[in-house]
Amino acid sequence: MTRAAYYLGERTFAVRESEPVPPGPGEVRIDVAYTGICGTDLHILHGAMDHRVRTPGVIGHEMSGRIAELGQDVAGLSVGDPVTVMPLEWCGRCPACRTGNSHICHRLNFVGIDSTGSMQRSWTVSTRIVVPLPAGLPLRHAALIEPTAVAVHDVRRSRLTAGEHAVVIGAGPVGLLIGKVAQAAGASVTVVELDPRRRSVAERIGLSAVDPAAVDLPALVQDTTDGAGAEVVFEVSGSAAGVRTATDLLAVRGRLVVVAIHPAPREVDLHRVFWRELEMIGVRVYQREDYVEAARLVHQGLVPADALISRVVPLDDVAEAFAALESGGDVKVLLDCGGEA
Amino acid sequence: MTRAAYYLGERTFAVRESEPVPPGPGEVRIDVAYTGICGTDLHILHGAMDHRVRTPGVIGHEMSGRIAELGQDVAGLSVGDPVTVMPLEWCGRCPACRTGNSHICHRLNFVGIDSTGSMQRSWTVSTRIVVPLPAGLPLRHAALIEPTAVAVHDVRRSRLTAGEHAVVIGAGPVGLLIGKVAQAAGASVTVVELDPRRRSVAERIGLSAVDPAAVDLPALVQDTTDGAGAEVVFEVSGSAAGVRTATDLLAVRGRLVVVAIHPAPREVDLHRVFWRELEMIGVRVYQREDYVEAARLVHQGLVPADALISRVVPLDDVAEAFAALESGGDVKVLLDCGGEA
Repeated sequence: MTRAAYYLGERTFAVRESEPVPPGPGEVRIDVAYTGICGTDLHILHGAMDHRVRTPGVIGHEMSGRIAELGQDVAGLSVGDPVTVMPLEWCGRCPACRTGNSHICHRLNFVGIDSTGSMQRSWTVSTRIVVPLPAGLPLRHAALIEPTAVAVHDVRRSRLTAGEHAVVIGAGPVGLLIGKVAQAAGASVTVVELDPRRRSVAERIGLSAVDPAAVDLPALVQDTTDGAGAEVVFEVSGSAAGVRTATDLLAVRGRLVVVAIHPAPREVDLHRVFWRELEMIGVRVYQREDYVEAARLVHQGLVPADALISRVVPLDDVAEAFAALESGGDVKVLLDCGGEA
Repeated sequence: MTRAAYYLGERTFAVRESEPVPPGPGEVRIDVAYTGICGTDLHILHGAMDHRVRTPGVIGHEMSGRIAELGQDVAGLSVGDPVTVMPLEWCGRCPACRTGNSHICHRLNFVGIDSTGSMQRSWTVSTRIVVPLPAGLPLRHAALIEPTAVAVHDVRRSRLTAGEHAVVIGAGPVGLLIGKVAQAAGASVTVVELDPRRRSVAERIGLSAVDPAAVDLPALVQDTTDGAGAEVVFEVSGSAAGVRTATDLLAVRGRLVVVAIHPAPREVDLHRVFWRELEMIGVRVYQREDYVEAARLVHQGLVPADALISRVVPLDDVAEAFAALESGGDVKVLLDCGGEA
């Protein structure tokens, strides 16, 4: 027997015994070591994604573990191999897939939201989504590869290059990861965040963080960039004010990367988009190459996993883990799913 | 003596005798053949640009003519050469100029708006802005090179390639030119326009034009593109509805090119920008390479100059020319400035 955290709807989890699922052809069973809790998981808890999530069901998609059992016709993987998953399954036939954008397939199955996820001890998945880990990378750290891949994708789409200046608006986990990935790319970075706790985390991991309520942000960015403005702004706050600020800060031909999910249309200063020939770039999830780069960055410590993991909680205490994250004092909370022992 | 149309402010022109300006070092005097009237010139007439335009002053920037006189230290140009101008003068020192974007210099001088323009018989300019014309290109047609260069710049920035589908929202002169330039690039094009007169011009020059009030536009574009959506949408209407429509029509990774000047911030569906990884691209004026390509397209007839020039009016009748354009039945109105005789 194994254990799994079942989301029941109405803000409730139940942790119960469950039968491990034997891997079919092309599948593997993974002993899950850690599963991180994502902002999307919090949205699920709040009922905002009831149209996509089955109940009772197991969610979770930021994970690490080891191969426990191989199904038929599995090549290139062995029992004991450390792995993570890239939790995307696509149709292969829609216009997105046909143009090389299967990561945003018209019929995308996001594993851990639209289908069973990793908040359990034993998880059976298709080998298509398995990503082997570099030797020597601690599994605790490896649970950060998925959100780091988000940041890698966002920075790659921004075409940020060494010597450029990037502003990150919003210092939640994804904003912080974008800041570190941008630094690793050789950019100088300013993080903008209202919450003093989040600013102090940013400073602790080596990012310059400012309070937009306390400084004249456009003037600050002008000063920092010799009058040019920022080459790239990452909007990670999801707020109308963040969008407004972003266009104000950008240099000629600057790029505004829309990372956050904006539930409502936002007013955008299209006159400035025209006047400065700005670009806006939408970003969503990641592609395989982003996972490879994310694993490298976590492995080399360029993404400071220990500083970002603020709490590790046993799977049985999943409700407490979500409550801690909701209270706002944490950065990244991992569930210890028991598979590392 | 020569003649010039002086804008006096308050919707008034006066055509008067004037002294030709002898060209100084690095300058040439041009006998102006034709000057097209641009939407911006109409804005000037309406008083919307009084903060930039001096009165009395000569406006106009879509022109063709012949070199009439050379100043000192002018090489590579001869009296009689057919020319147009690229009406941009930049500082060479600001952050835009330093990064290769001098066409959107922080201190850009737009010749014909911020300084003296071509609605006159004799015009003296720096050789820096003179563009020699291909032999055999009629000067009447050459007056369309400037607005065609706008369209070339916009299509180039869109990264449109052969086989892609482009939608042009708004079929004024720039929208029509974008449609033809996009066709020349090998794209299929749908023009969206409420005004039946403009739709009939579009059809006459070989563009498929639809009335957005009469068709289900998203369904039409879906059908045309095998369910994918349009790779590129050019927003040339300047309306809030145009922006809304644009994001609805785009394929995964589609590009929305913001051509029109939007005087107020517009609501943009950032959720769709995220979901489909859309891009928005600001465009403004042109660069030298766009002029070269525009001259080629006009010369080869890929831009149908005769069909777009709906009226040629003597310089003395400048007020009538503006009135005709205002009434909405014209496409491109040229002033015959007398320099071709």
